[in-house]
Amino acid sequence: MGLPKEVTITEVCPRDGFQTLPGEVPTDVKVDIINRIFECGFKQVEVTSFVHPKAVPQMKDADEVLKRINRPEGVTLRALIPNLRGLERAIEAKVDKVKLMLSATDSHSLNNANAKTFDAMKDFEAIVKRAETTDVKVGASISVAFGCPYEGPVPIERHIEICKRYEQLGITEISLADTTGMATPVNIKLVVSTLKEKFPSFHFSLHLHNTRGMAFANAVAGLEEGIVDFDSSVGGLGGCPYAPNASGNIASEDIIHGFEEMGIKTNVDLDKVIDVAKHLRELFPEQIDSFILKAGKNSDLHIAPGKQKKIGE
Amino acid sequence: MGLPKEVTITEVCPRDGFQTLPGEVPTDVKVDIINRIFECGFKQVEVTSFVHPKAVPQMKDADEVLKRINRPEGVTLRALIPNLRGLERAIEAKVDKVKLMLSATDSHSLNNANAKTFDAMKDFEAIVKRAETTDVKVGASISVAFGCPYEGPVPIERHIEICKRYEQLGITEISLADTTGMATPVNIKLVVSTLKEKFPSFHFSLHLHNTRGMAFANAVAGLEEGIVDFDSSVGGLGGCPYAPNASGNIASEDIIHGFEEMGIKTNVDLDKVIDVAKHLRELFPEQIDSFILKAGKNSDLHIAPGKQKKIGE
Repeated sequence: MGLPKEVTITEVCPRDGFQTLPGEVPTDVKVDIINRIFECGFKQVEVTSFVHPKAVPQMKDADEVLKRINRPEGVTLRALIPNLRGLERAIEAKVDKVKLMLSATDSHSLNNANAKTFDAMKDFEAIVKRAETTDVKVGASISVAFGCPYEGPVPIERHIEICKRYEQLGITEISLADTTGMATPVNIKLVVSTLKEKFPSFHFSLHLHNTRGMAFANAVAGLEEGIVDFDSSVGGLGGCPYAPNASGNIASEDIIHGFEEMGIKTNVDLDKVIDVAKHLRELFPEQIDSFILKAGKNSDLHIAPGKQKKIGE
Repeated sequence: MGLPKEVTITEVCPRDGFQTLPGEVPTDVKVDIINRIFECGFKQVEVTSFVHPKAVPQMKDADEVLKRINRPEGVTLRALIPNLRGLERAIEAKVDKVKLMLSATDSHSLNNANAKTFDAMKDFEAIVKRAETTDVKVGASISVAFGCPYEGPVPIERHIEICKRYEQLGITEISLADTTGMATPVNIKLVVSTLKEKFPSFHFSLHLHNTRGMAFANAVAGLEEGIVDFDSSVGGLGGCPYAPNASGNIASEDIIHGFEEMGIKTNVDLDKVIDVAKHLRELFPEQIDSFILKAGKNSDLHIAPGKQKKIGE
């Protein structure tokens, strides 16, 4: 199948997960969960987003969280930012990398950032310039890249246009996000192969949601196109407002289990991830759900019944 | 991706689904559901299994169900049988095709059929000979083909051995079943490509469970290997006793939605399937679950908010 031997899984639960929780999660609890996530061996963790507390109240203690978490060596702390103010907070909080928020379609961008896609990019040049004066790296994203809940399919020309702008800005690390789980392996392959060909110096990653049951298939399609970076969320925490009870982020334990079963190294300790997921399930029983939590690993074998019951006629 | 343009989806809810329901489903209800399934356009339906009522009490009215359902032209009625007695009942009930039950591993076979794999095949020659005197076609299956809950991985040599025996018996239609959802795209591709190469006259289909979230990825792997026949169950009805609360059969609405979104024709009316799934959810709320039931189709677009709320700082 021409699959990569090794991939990097970025844990996004502290950002994409926590922001969907109803009510307030105490800072202490957040810090403890993030520290447990570090123990699993993830090399990159999206620890928070620096957005306005009125927009995402669950992230209002972002600065405090960043002050108190451990900072294991070799682990990249990434934060999502919507604008220059977010960057300043990220610099102050000493994150390693920021990810710029952007939607592929104008409708989604208007809803999420109060501006059309290219208007929402206006700030990006100043962000890049400011970041260059620091050690903070800048990556970016394209949300609803594989389908928009308002507009449906996203034409490939749109991605090319957006990436050209990113190229002008010197941003080459792009997270392609299936924000509402509308991707299929066919459009994953089309988008990834086209963009990789047109922007050979870019590094693309995939952020997949399992809203319509295709996330793992989409991950495999990504692998087949040479993608080696994937986001996921422990316990599957994190959904999407357009389908309130549906599955959200692909669960870290599910993608890690699947990849490892396929012989692809993730360098994350699956058992520790499952332990964190179980811990999260105790804290947020309504929000935590994953296949591996319910079914166990392939390697969790059952004991063959010694005394066979008679079945059949 | 070299995908087939068209596939056949076999609806297995009346067999694999009903057999897992707790309590008794009235014959009337079964007949009504099967008739609704026919209305969706499925060209093959696994309507029941002719097993001993003590082994699977939910199937004790199989003969009566077959007497009372509609028989739309061009639809193949398939039934699972464990032995010669099952065949006689299937002939009497005028099904079009029987599917022989068989497990890839001795442990699973002992548990399911009270005999090791090759011992369980002893009856098969008599079954084939008897069926040849009728219009009933004989297909077969290999359960736990991609992983056994007792033994783990199944060596490819085992499948070759089993298929050789099927070849001697003149049985060439084989359902490869991921009974407990342990398959990955890698072993789907290995098993399917190897068996197709060694048994070029065989017709293989895939029966996939979503126990560990990989069913759709496995279906896509099957497509890539030229598989054009897939089983699925409306509303995802049908689980596996080894993981009681886990997902079971891939839901018909999920696989049909995914395939159609990939441009692959299923010739089944997805909206009607969703209606049947909703009907089943009313009848069996605890047992029915699918991604599309919760999230809707990709094409169910949302109305972009006219007045945008301000987000970001």
